[in-house]
Amino acid sequence: MMAQAAVALAVPIRLLAEGPDVSAAQVVRDPMVGDYRDLETLRSVADGCAVVTFDHEHVPTEHLHALTREGHACRPGPEALVHAQDKHVMRARLDRLDVPSPRHRLVSTPAQVAEFAETVGGFPVVLKITRGGYDGKGVWVVSSSEECADAFAVAGSTDVAILAEEKVTFRRELSALVARSPSGQVAAYPVVESVQRDGICWEVVAPAPDLDPSLALEAQRIAMRVAGELDVTGVLAVEMFETDDGRVLVNELAMRPHNTGHWTIDGAVTSQFENHLRAVTGLPLGSTAARGHCAMLNLISTMPDAATLLAEPGICLHDYGKQPRPGRKLGHVTFVESTARRADLRAARLLRRIDSRRI
Amino acid sequence: MMAQAAVALAVPIRLLAEGPDVSAAQVVRDPMVGDYRDLETLRSVADGCAVVTFDHEHVPTEHLHALTREGHACRPGPEALVHAQDKHVMRARLDRLDVPSPRHRLVSTPAQVAEFAETVGGFPVVLKITRGGYDGKGVWVVSSSEECADAFAVAGSTDVAILAEEKVTFRRELSALVARSPSGQVAAYPVVESVQRDGICWEVVAPAPDLDPSLALEAQRIAMRVAGELDVTGVLAVEMFETDDGRVLVNELAMRPHNTGHWTIDGAVTSQFENHLRAVTGLPLGSTAARGHCAMLNLISTMPDAATLLAEPGICLHDYGKQPRPGRKLGHVTFVESTARRADLRAARLLRRIDSRRI
Repeated sequence: MMAQAAVALAVPIRLLAEGPDVSAAQVVRDPMVGDYRDLETLRSVADGCAVVTFDHEHVPTEHLHALTREGHACRPGPEALVHAQDKHVMRARLDRLDVPSPRHRLVSTPAQVAEFAETVGGFPVVLKITRGGYDGKGVWVVSSSEECADAFAVAGSTDVAILAEEKVTFRRELSALVARSPSGQVAAYPVVESVQRDGICWEVVAPAPDLDPSLALEAQRIAMRVAGELDVTGVLAVEMFETDDGRVLVNELAMRPHNTGHWTIDGAVTSQFENHLRAVTGLPLGSTAARGHCAMLNLISTMPDAATLLAEPGICLHDYGKQPRPGRKLGHVTFVESTARRADLRAARLLRRIDSRRI
Repeated sequence: MMAQAAVALAVPIRLLAEGPDVSAAQVVRDPMVGDYRDLETLRSVADGCAVVTFDHEHVPTEHLHALTREGHACRPGPEALVHAQDKHVMRARLDRLDVPSPRHRLVSTPAQVAEFAETVGGFPVVLKITRGGYDGKGVWVVSSSEECADAFAVAGSTDVAILAEEKVTFRRELSALVARSPSGQVAAYPVVESVQRDGICWEVVAPAPDLDPSLALEAQRIAMRVAGELDVTGVLAVEMFETDDGRVLVNELAMRPHNTGHWTIDGAVTSQFENHLRAVTGLPLGSTAARGHCAMLNLISTMPDAATLLAEPGICLHDYGKQPRPGRKLGHVTFVESTARRADLRAARLLRRIDSRRI
């Protein structure tokens, strides 16, 4: 999807792909195939590029420091990106910024988990590996210190730490997406509601229906402040909980175009992918205004027949060209309508017609 | 721009490009470079492709017949495409269909031009080469039989015929764009106004402001009828004159995504490029509804600085990555606003800021 935005801006892309047939490699000229964990590979890709950017956060921080020392413009830079790579670093930083977050603590034994649970009103608590988790992987909700075994087994085998977090009682999940350029220009998209299922983003409704305007503003202000304080370049997604008592707490950070921003391709004046490219190349940011009320549905596990999807009136389809796999996001569809209710109805109607989303 | 639509639909593209650096070759994987006038080249590109389609009309008709005989699905097929390749064939066919058109006659001498002029109320008349013209090239407005020398010189040297047409007095130019699939499904976009300058499309306003609804319907009906009668697959653009006395007359046909439909990328639910791909691959057509009122400006001859363009609020930029050349379309911008007047104002404001459009 970044490649589509690059076409419009005539920004030439040099892609490092994990394999010759991954989504992005199918749609750019002369993709390079290699391992993003190998510094020599990264050097050969970055050589001659004006800017280095990412569509995931897994490039090792130390390699990005090396590239930066060697004169490459990594955007976002490693000092910023580490906050999206390491949940403990992120939590510690947000605490110093006084950004509202769930209570948390690094833990290395089940006894420490039990101690932490006592300070937040008891079990259940959430355990997360500090690095490398995604789409619900590397996250456990535990109801006793005995249930911590899985998490500590993973931590022991992969040499990452475990962060314990209070299990927040929330009304729903929100996401505040901003783009920030090296000049400090920041553009905030409308705050959206994201519906998660088994740790995977299932649906996004944009703008978030019936969201208190002052809470929406607060969510945007948090995202803009985090982007500025962390010196983010490009897109920053701040996933939040809207608590039952009307606050927002930061759950996760992502420093790249994010699933909760896919609605912007069809539903906003400037897509998150274009604004990411504009930001990292130092161009003025585009309008983040919504063109209507959107419902974005992820297509997960199996891909419905294209003809079935495209027969749906007003549908915007994005097929990632991926091989099906349980729990894998294979594409998404967006409906842009004049009201949130209409967009919802379209999405619900489609859901009744496809059965692909069973994980 | 077709490549962007192909990304969304996960339709793999095999491109035959005229050179390694043309726009399309910059943005698809493994472009093939070769001459579209060479049948062997066409065969090697088409081999293994489900469908063969075009972004210009210059592939020789006889080669398309050969490919079709050999079992390739050319969409549109040569029987349809010839009407966009040969203006005489097109005029004769539209006459048989009783589609309102300017009066016309094949001419081979200045004396025949003078004879024709008498039948349409005198000079000036329009001379056109029947094949190969574009962007005002191959078109002459002549005020006497002496002025025909240029046209007949071109015709003599290139072995094409000359068509004389009455010079229509028109209020403005319109374009009716439809997409048609092999199943016969037809989807019509709102009729747009196109502003030409020196034979080049300068600006498109969509939908056409203040167009009489019955005339808009008539224009759409003509386009849908032509698409059906000519068995068009893919996008058909019917350029028309809106005469001073409130009729529409067909000026030109194009059977591919067309400049007068570029507004659809940002301004319609489904872009003309996606609907072209949906049509030629036999998928259901998408909604042609406008998302708002659009002004589309071509960027001609020189490309304004990207930062200057992108600083304009609400702008959607499409830079084709082409080398500048006088009279060449290098990109376009679109503004989508809640009223035609707002879109116009945005475009006018941008025009004051850039001086790139002097041809």
